[in-house]
Parts: sequence; C-alpha cells; structure tokens
Amino acid sequence: MLLDKVDGFIIDLDGTVYRGKQPIEGARETIQYLRASGKKIVFLTNRGNYSRRMCRDKLNDMGIAVSDDEIVLSSTVTAAYLRRIDPECKAWPFGDEGLKEELSLAGVHIADRPEEADWLVITLFENLTYADLNRAFRAVRHGARIIATNDDRTFPGDDGDSIDVAGMIGAIVNATGQSVSIVIGKPSPFMSDAALQSLRLPPERCLVIGDSMASDIQLGKSSGMRTALVLSGSTTREQVEAAADKPDWIWESLSELISLLEGVKTKC
Amino acid sequence: MLLDKVDGFIIDLDGTVYRGKQPIEGARETIQYLRASGKKIVFLTNRGNYSRRMCRDKLNDMGIAVSDDEIVLSSTVTAAYLRRIDPECKAWPFGDEGLKEELSLAGVHIADRPEEADWLVITLFENLTYADLNRAFRAVRHGARIIATNDDRTFPGDDGDSIDVAGMIGAIVNATGQSVSIVIGKPSPFMSDAALQSLRLPPERCLVIGDSMASDIQLGKSSGMRTALVLSGSTTREQVEAAADKPDWIWESLSELISLLEGVKTKC
Repeated sequence: MLLDKVDGFIIDLDGTVYRGKQPIEGARETIQYLRASGKKIVFLTNRGNYSRRMCRDKLNDMGIAVSDDEIVLSSTVTAAYLRRIDPECKAWPFGDEGLKEELSLAGVHIADRPEEADWLVITLFENLTYADLNRAFRAVRHGARIIATNDDRTFPGDDGDSIDVAGMIGAIVNATGQSVSIVIGKPSPFMSDAALQSLRLPPERCLVIGDSMASDIQLGKSSGMRTALVLSGSTTREQVEAAADKPDWIWESLSELISLLEGVKTKC
Repeated sequence: MLLDKVDGFIIDLDGTVYRGKQPIEGARETIQYLRASGKKIVFLTNRGNYSRRMCRDKLNDMGIAVSDDEIVLSSTVTAAYLRRIDPECKAWPFGDEGLKEELSLAGVHIADRPEEADWLVITLFENLTYADLNRAFRAVRHGARIIATNDDRTFPGDDGDSIDVAGMIGAIVNATGQSVSIVIGKPSPFMSDAALQSLRLPPERCLVIGDSMASDIQLGKSSGMRTALVLSGSTTREQVEAAADKPDWIWESLSELISLLEGVKTKC
C-alpha cells in the first residue's frame, strides 16, 4: 500500500475542501483524521484574490482549524517572487483585496498611480469595475510588465462555474497587445516548491490531492509526488479516464482517504 | 481639386468631432458649413455602447443638430445584421445600455437568462462589473456564439486613452476558448454599406474623415471613397507619414475642410 509512506498532504481548496461557501461533505473530518494521525498538511490553492488571513478565517468558519503557515496561496507565492526578483519594484494589483494584503505583507511596494507601476499583478477580481480595468490597462500602456497569480479559466462558485483569472488576463492582453511575462499558479514549480518548503518533506513522501488534472495532478506528477484526483470539483470520471497520464488514485471526495488510511493501519 | 466632386461626407465622431465630452474646436462650424453648402453628412462611429438617440442628444448638447438617420453606429449595424441573418435568435448584450436599446429597436429578442442566448453581443461596457462578466461567460459556455460591434483597443476618453471593446472581447475569448464569429465595426463593409445607404450616393462621390488609419482610412480605401485623416485624435503625423497607404488628405482637424471648400468655390 503506497499510502503508508505518505507523511505530507498537499490539499487543494476550491472543489476539494469547499465549493463557494459550502464545505464538501467529509472534508472537515478527513482533515481532523490526518491531524490525529500525526500527518503534515498544507493547503495549496491557485486563489490569488485571498490573503492567508482571509483563507484561514474561511476555513475556521467551516470548523477546520489551520495556521497561516499551512496555507500556500498563489497570491503569497507571487508576492514572494516579486520581492525576490525585483525588490525595489512598484506593483499595481489588479484583483481583490487579498492580493494587495499579501503584496504588502511581503514588502512589495504598491504604486500610487498605475502609470508608475513596474508590474501589473493580475488575479481573480470579483469586485471588478470598468474603472479598475482601465487603470490596469494604463499600467501596461505605460510600461508595466504582467505577472499573473494563475491563469485558470473557471472556478466553482456559489451558483455554478464562474469566470476566473483567464478573463482578467484576456482583457488586458487583448487590449494592450502585451503578453503575460510569468504565471505563478499550479502546476508551476513555484507552487510545489512553496508547498514542500512548508511541509519540510521530500516530494516522494508527499501526496497532492485536488480536483483539477491540469493544475493539481500535473503539479504532483512534474515534481515527483503521488497524486489523487477528487471528483467533487471540476473534473468528471470520464475526463480522468480519458486522460493519458492518470493520477495514482481517483476518489469521489476527500473523505475516501480515511478508509484507505484505516486499511493501512489494519495491515500494520 | 478633388473636393469639388464630393457630395457626401462620412464623418467619424470620437477624436474627430469630440474627445470624451469635449467638442473639438471648429467641428461644429465645419458641420454647419457643410449643411449650408448643401452637402450630405453621415456620422459613422464604431461606438456600440450608444444608441442613435443617445448620440443625437450628445451632438445636440454640443450645438450640432443631427437627425437619427444621419447617425450610423456599430450597435445599429450589429442589431440590423442579427435581425437579418438570425431573425428568431435571442441575444445577450454585454455592453452599456445603448446596445440593448438598438437591439430592441431592431426587433432582436433579448434572452431572459444568459444560458438561453444564441448570441453574445459584445461592445464597450463602461458600467461593467464582475457579475456582468460572469453572465457573458455563462452565455458562451452554454453555446452562445460571439458577435462584437467592433474590436478597437482604445478610445480617447475624458481623462486619456481608455480600454475599449478589445478588453471585453479578450476577457470572454480567453476564459471560454471560443473565438469571435463576427466583428461588425469599421473597417468592415457592413459599416461602409450602411453609411452609403444613408447618404444614397455612390462611393466615388463620398469622403471619409476620421482619426484612425486602421478603421476610418482603411474603410474608405477598401470601398472606393476618398479619405482624410485628422490629427485631432489617436494618430500622429509621424504615424500617417510612415504608413504605406496614405490618405488623400491629412488635416490638423476637421475645420481645415472649410478653407479647402472655400478654395473650390473661388475656383468655380
């Protein structure tokens, strides 16, 4: 049984732990079970419009206790990346408040005006208006390069699939003719490195669990981790079975993990 | 003098007659002069977020008297096109109120929900919110084809160049993976045909005046009209002079037309 060698669990959020504001059945109990078994956990999400604080509050409200260093968001990783490669840069955030919070926490300067920005940082923007779009447009027209927290097309919202960061990116790229310099989100190694740093474990002792073949499973496979796809989010069983490179496990939802770990225990 | 054979004037609005809410100096007088000389006029604009009523009111407020049939907007031409090629279709407008007004006037049905739409009609959306963007996204995810009033990248707004329809298009195309089926705006023949219909003149007796090489001058050249570029909008003299296919005239602004027509009169 491969699972007995897994000590670190890298768990996606949207479509894996919750859908919009609704927790997915059994997710809370599974996380409690992992903690009780002494396993390490990190939540790894392409959400760039949340800060760790906002994400922790959301999980706490669902009865899932979590500390800030168990949360790796694409906003956090993007902010750390900018701070590392361009420490004196000025950024113009084009996304919801959480992005700005993570940029500021990392010590990235926020430009006073879009025309002064070195980087336009794009993420999901659920409070978007035309004025915001126009400011982002002007940042790029005045020379800002484009970095995106991720480029997902859709995420599972409260009332169905909703337009994600690809929408915000497309607006700016198509109107300016400038392409995106860098995308931070899963499946990039920026995200797997950040998750492994948080877990302090080698990849072969980690399992990635998520609902997306293109981001979660791809990230696990390209960094030498085991992978489990859950069908509680954006992927159907037919889609996984038609894929060339399948995950190690396919589960209806995160809670299947409990019975598998129980099986491991019985064998030991 | 070529101008003595011109009886119909096809005049662009943004950057030619006004910039944002500001009329361009001499534009009103030039239009009065044309009318006094018995010339025919049509205002031809890629604006798809205005209705003819809104456009007429704006021009009247600037002291420029104009009737509805002297205004050809990309919203008007798009509505007529949909009504002609798909008379029973349901449309979902993704743009400001003027678009919906023109669709309704043309007898195009507006869908009650985005999921029921056969066509997503994209234009400039200065009142855009994320919720609007998401509804447009859902229309296309449920099978609506995409038609755009135009695909301009930028227009001269009150406080500088502003993001235009290309932004709205890019958001939907990049997030859905569906491309635009048809673009109605200048320089397409849909627009020159509509202008010539309004003037009831053959193209060789018409002059197109506008501030864009790519839309105004291109439209004139591809439909056999004479062309004049004004430098009061988005194009600089250097840009026109570097172009392979130059307009017949280059003017600082529309008002240069008066002295040229005076010259014609003197010669007669």
